[in-house]
Order: sequence, then C-alpha cells, then structure tokens
Amino acid sequence: MQSNSFIRRNLLIDKSLRERAEKVIPAGMWGHMSIAALPEGYPQFFAQSKGSRLTDIDGNQYIDFMCGYGPIILGHKDPDVDAAFIAQMREIDLANGPGEKLVDLAELFVDIIPAADWAMFSKNGTDATTACVMIARSKTKKRKIAIAQGAYHGASPWFTPRLAGTTPEDRSHLVYFNYNDVNSLEEVASSVGDDLAGILVSAFRHDTRADQELPSLAFAKAVREVANRTKSALILDDVRAGFRINLGGSWESLGIRPDLSAWSKAIGNGFPIAAVTGNDHFREAAQKVFVTGSFWTGAAAMAAAEATIQKLLRIDAIRHMEKLGNMLREGIREQALQLGVKVRQTGPVQMPQILFDEDPEFRLGNKFCTTALMHGVYLHPWHNMFLSTAHTESDIEMTLAATQYGLEAVAAEQ
Amino acid sequence: MQSNSFIRRNLLIDKSLRERAEKVIPAGMWGHMSIAALPEGYPQFFAQSKGSRLTDIDGNQYIDFMCGYGPIILGHKDPDVDAAFIAQMREIDLANGPGEKLVDLAELFVDIIPAADWAMFSKNGTDATTACVMIARSKTKKRKIAIAQGAYHGASPWFTPRLAGTTPEDRSHLVYFNYNDVNSLEEVASSVGDDLAGILVSAFRHDTRADQELPSLAFAKAVREVANRTKSALILDDVRAGFRINLGGSWESLGIRPDLSAWSKAIGNGFPIAAVTGNDHFREAAQKVFVTGSFWTGAAAMAAAEATIQKLLRIDAIRHMEKLGNMLREGIREQALQLGVKVRQTGPVQMPQILFDEDPEFRLGNKFCTTALMHGVYLHPWHNMFLSTAHTESDIEMTLAATQYGLEAVAAEQ
Repeated sequence: MQSNSFIRRNLLIDKSLRERAEKVIPAGMWGHMSIAALPEGYPQFFAQSKGSRLTDIDGNQYIDFMCGYGPIILGHKDPDVDAAFIAQMREIDLANGPGEKLVDLAELFVDIIPAADWAMFSKNGTDATTACVMIARSKTKKRKIAIAQGAYHGASPWFTPRLAGTTPEDRSHLVYFNYNDVNSLEEVASSVGDDLAGILVSAFRHDTRADQELPSLAFAKAVREVANRTKSALILDDVRAGFRINLGGSWESLGIRPDLSAWSKAIGNGFPIAAVTGNDHFREAAQKVFVTGSFWTGAAAMAAAEATIQKLLRIDAIRHMEKLGNMLREGIREQALQLGVKVRQTGPVQMPQILFDEDPEFRLGNKFCTTALMHGVYLHPWHNMFLSTAHTESDIEMTLAATQYGLEAVAAEQ
Repeated sequence: MQSNSFIRRNLLIDKSLRERAEKVIPAGMWGHMSIAALPEGYPQFFAQSKGSRLTDIDGNQYIDFMCGYGPIILGHKDPDVDAAFIAQMREIDLANGPGEKLVDLAELFVDIIPAADWAMFSKNGTDATTACVMIARSKTKKRKIAIAQGAYHGASPWFTPRLAGTTPEDRSHLVYFNYNDVNSLEEVASSVGDDLAGILVSAFRHDTRADQELPSLAFAKAVREVANRTKSALILDDVRAGFRINLGGSWESLGIRPDLSAWSKAIGNGFPIAAVTGNDHFREAAQKVFVTGSFWTGAAAMAAAEATIQKLLRIDAIRHMEKLGNMLREGIREQALQLGVKVRQTGPVQMPQILFDEDPEFRLGNKFCTTALMHGVYLHPWHNMFLSTAHTESDIEMTLAATQYGLEAVAAEQ
C-alpha cells in the first residue's frame, strides 16, 4: 500500500483567524461548518481547493471526503462548471427577471427527472423543503406534515434541530414516524384523521451520529400508498442525496415517484442553487404559494447547474463514485478485520458513514478521524461523508494508507 | 431636453420563452420577478446588463431603475466587484469551512456599522429576518414579534404576504402595529403583557402599492424606548434599504440603534449574500440558535460584499445616488406640474416610489410606466425603485425625456 506523503504541520494561522473571528462572529462560527463539535485538530478555515483536494489556511492539504458537506460533486473548482458560471456572469446574472438559462435548466430538470413535470429554483435546501411543505398544504388544504423522527430537513424555525429561538407553534403541525417503519407511518397517518398534507421523507436515513439506512422497498411503497390513500403529498427530501444516487431522483431505482422533491447541495457543484420539482397534480398549488428571494433568479448559478448536470450525465458520474466508494469501503473493512476493530460502514458507498461499535461518545471515531487528518485525509466522525467524481483510485489508495493509521490508533484505544 | 434614442421594438423571443417556461415552471414564473402583475409590455427575460443598463432577451435596452429589485447598487456587472468575486472563486469558494474572507467581512461590518458588535452571513433576506426573530426569542425567552401592518419581511410561511400553503399557527405570535404610529405601537406592546420578544421594523415604510414614509424621529425613538422597557429586541429590517440610506445602517442618521439588523440585497452588488448584525447583548443568544445553509460560507460572495462595501465607501455612493435621485424627482415634479398631472413621489430619492392621485387600480401608473418602457426606461408602477451609483446625469436626462412622454400619456388618460 502506497504511503501517504502528507503530514499535517500546524494550525497557527487557523488559530489566529479563530481568535479574530470570535470577536466579530458569535462563538466564532455558526451552523454545520462550525468545528466546535469536532475533535481538536480540525481546521476551521480553508484557503484553496482543487478536484478532490482541500488546502487549509495553514497550507495543509487534504483529500476531501466532505465535499463542502455535499455540494461538491464534480470536485472542487470543476473547470467546466466554473467556466459556465463565469461565461454566464459576463452576459447577465441578476436582473429584473431571469435569463434564458432559467428555462433551459427547468427543461433539463423535467427531462432527466421522471417524476418532474415542472421546476422552481431558490438558494437554500431549506427554501426547497419549506416550499414543498407549503405547496402540499396549498394543494390539500390540510395541515399536518409527517416526518421521520430525528431527520434533518432544514434550519428554519419549523424544523431546526435545536429549539433555541423557536416556539412550540412553529412545529404544531408536524407529526412523527420512524424511518423504514411501515407500522409507525400507518399509525401517524391514522392519528391525524383527514388532516395529512404531506409525508416528507429523506432519500435515505442519513441522520447525524447514527448508522445510515437505505429505504426498504416495503417502506417506500407504503409511503406512496399512504400518500395516495390520504390524498397527501409524497415529498422527497433529496437535498443531501440528490444526484449522488440516481440522476433521476434517489427513489427512482425503487420505482417510487414523489409528488414533490426538494433539491440543493450538489445540483450546482457548490454554486448556490436549490430546486423544487413536482408533478402536474401540484402545479396549480405551486402557482398559488408566494415564495421568493432576492437572488433566486441569478442566471450564473443556473448556468453552473446546467453544466453540472450535463457533465454528470456525460461522465457516468454515479458509477464512478460507486466504484471508488466500494473500493474505500472494502479497503477499510479489510483493514478493520485485520486489526480486530469493529467498524460499521452504512449507507450508499458514495455517501459513507463510518461509526465504531461501543463508541457512544465518538471517542474512537474522533481518534480515527484526527489520525487520518494528520495523514492528509479529511473525514468526519459522525456526519455522513461524500465522494465526488474528482476522486481517483490513487486518492482512495492514499486514503487507505491514512485509514490504516487511523484504525491502528483505534485498535490501540480499545 | 435631450431626446431618447431608444425605441422598443418587440418581445418575440420573450414571448416564445414564456411559452416554453409555462410548460416547465408553474405559471411560467414565481415570486416578485413574475411579470404577471405588471401591465402588458414588460419583458420577463433579460440577456445582458452593464452599469445602469439592462438589455432584454429581444435586444431592447433600458435604463434600469429596479436594479434587480435592489441588489445592484454599484450598477450591473461592476468591474471591481466582479473581479473580486472571480479572484476569490479561483482560490476557494465553498469548502468544509469558510475562508479568511469571512473574518475580513465580519470585521468590515462591525467597523462600518456602529450598532454592530458581530455579524453572521446567509443567502436570503428571509434568512436574515428569520434569524433575527429567532435570536430575539432565544435571548428573551419570549414569543411575540410586533411588526407593522402591511410590511414585508420575507417569504417564509411565517410572513409571506399570501396565505396559500401557510397555517394560522405559522403567525400565531405575530402582533401588528401601524408604521409611524406611536400609539398603536404602545397598544400592541401592552396587549402582549410580558411576552414581547422583538419589534421588527423596516428602515422606512416601503410597502408595495402605497406611498412610502420615512420613520418619524418620534416613532423611531418610541420603538427603541418600548424595546428597552419591555426588554425586547429592536430588529431593523434593512434588507431592502441597507447601504442606500446610510452605510452605517438606515436608522443611524436618526441616532437610533437597533439590537439586531437584517441585511441582504445590495450588500454584495447582486451576488447572493445576506447578513445579521447585532450588539453584544444578543451575542450569546445568537450562538444558541441553529441556523445554517449549504452555501452560507461561500467565500466568493463574501469577497464580492467586501469589494462592494469598500467601493461604496470610496466613491461617496450615497451622496451620488441622492444627487441623481433629487434630479429625477425634481424633473418629474416639474413635468407633472406643467401637465397638470397629480403625482406623488415618496420615500428617499434614491429609492423612489411614484404613484398617481385617483389611481386605485394603477391604470395611470401602468400607462406612465409602459410609455417610459417604450422609450427605454424601466420603471415600476407600484413597487419602490432603486438608483445605483452607475446612474449618470445623462441617464437621468434621458429618463426625463421618457417620463415626459409617460406623463403626457397620463394627462391624456385623465
């Protein structure tokens, strides 16, 4: 196995930037990119990126398995996407209405996504999930939205995972089932009588700090069936998984089609764009809701999304990510077996989650990841990770050299 | 007065694009940039932009007084801002954490905004107003938010102006006062007892379809005083007006400082970025709320914002916009007087609203604007407009040639 030439040196500039940041930003950072919940050793600030590599503010380089927490699907600074963005920006970006790219992109979404008869665009995944819920309520004239316990569907008051700053009324019409549990879904559906507006469900169970679970076919069928029976909307939250599982939608290979889907993250390879797609039954309801944002019609991000999709189609992206994801998973499995380390690798191989047995506080996971980080590989101890099409076999080999060190460190802790 | 050489020809490509759009986008367009509520003759799609000019998809050029509904403050495609964006994009944009630009930009906000001890960034104005409300509730442990009747603070379920897709509970903790009405503010504050978390107030009254109103000093003082007395947050919604009235915040010249401010639109000259600023009393509460978005740490939009602010400071932007705004207002006033047309021009001159007496259905306003459009000037019949620093005296002269035709058409209709 090839040895990894990256050795992390220091985080001196990062430390001084964090000190500056603490003065002018609450806690120095907010949201999912704060390193406050990560073990010591993670850099907060980054300086450069290219393909599968990220360089932190101190010049330490990493093979990146977070991909900006998902958006980077063709690799950092993909030349084709960046060129499309800049070319569009030189013509027109934000104006008093959209550019032609809006229609091109909506047509492309409708073309590649079998469940989609129409599309609308916005900026955040939360914009998209929120609009789906509004459209479902607008169509059905009902109120209740069923979501899986523990699932993340955005950071609005109505489902942000932390309750600070929210009121009970923000979520008074949410009801909860357990992912992959048909009985709990049926129970929750009957508990709300005639009032179910929608079932909002992630492409697969990708809660933080937990093993991932693909949807069972029985569960996906039950979601569709309950939605049909109750005349509610099946809303697929494809924000995190979209375009990594199936370019036609993450449930397409199950043969289950949502009424509405929320997209964001990977659709513009890191440029800010989100989308709602829906079928014709929900078209009129979609017209009635008022959702908007200052930058939602920006043409440059739409050009980036068009270029991203065209390239994903052209290079058989999902097969590439699956192949390398399998190589990584299989390599780690063998390493762990040899070392007697009990590791659980769950979810789709291109969106790996790596957790350790008997590790409720992530002590082992943290050791694994910080050791890998020292050897130039950026993994996450409890959030699912992401491969991109820029990862190469050589990247995976170098990564496996780092995970070998990481698993040895875990073995020594056990 | 110089004659205007622009004559609109046709909207043939626009029409064909709208037909394509109607197939793949609900109603062909959504949100505030839909031309559905505008009179016949407005183009939906745009192809090029530069400085004060917009070119529609059919090649018709306009002097633009909407500036993308506000974001374009230095003119379309400002070369300095675009260069800063591209330079940053070539280094790093979205990664697993922010770039150094986050700290630079937060420091710059704190530096130029006297009320700000810290800043956080996001993508939509709605993100910013929503985060302010959450921070106010998190700090005060109270629930009620007082807002002015008819004000627009975003398109989330909790205050989108159309109710389709919302539930009554989404706004169960909103209470309403009348802008510039101290008594109504006092009444609403006492009506909620101990439960007032915040007063959310626009920089000035800029409701659509109504005359604009600057805040009276008595009103602004009362808002501050009620917030102090009830230990609630004074939240200034500076999304629409921010950086056009005063670079230190729109109430700075009144001597009234908000606890929290929401910013977006103009802060990045059209690149997608929003901000919350706050004082130290609200810092800890801001740390506690969980707000985040996939693209909120993108460094390129932050570089654009930094370049925008630096240029606004350098070129004495507000004085320039005020000077041209006065020239436009005075010119129209004289034209209307000569023609016996009763026109009301309200709000800050750099954010004009032009409405006609006895025109409840905007028949006269529509005539005025569509005539100006035919002569190459893009005005809006019922939404406040925006000047940018790219507008020149010659632009205003050409605009006044078009408004002369517009007012003559109005006079003929009366």
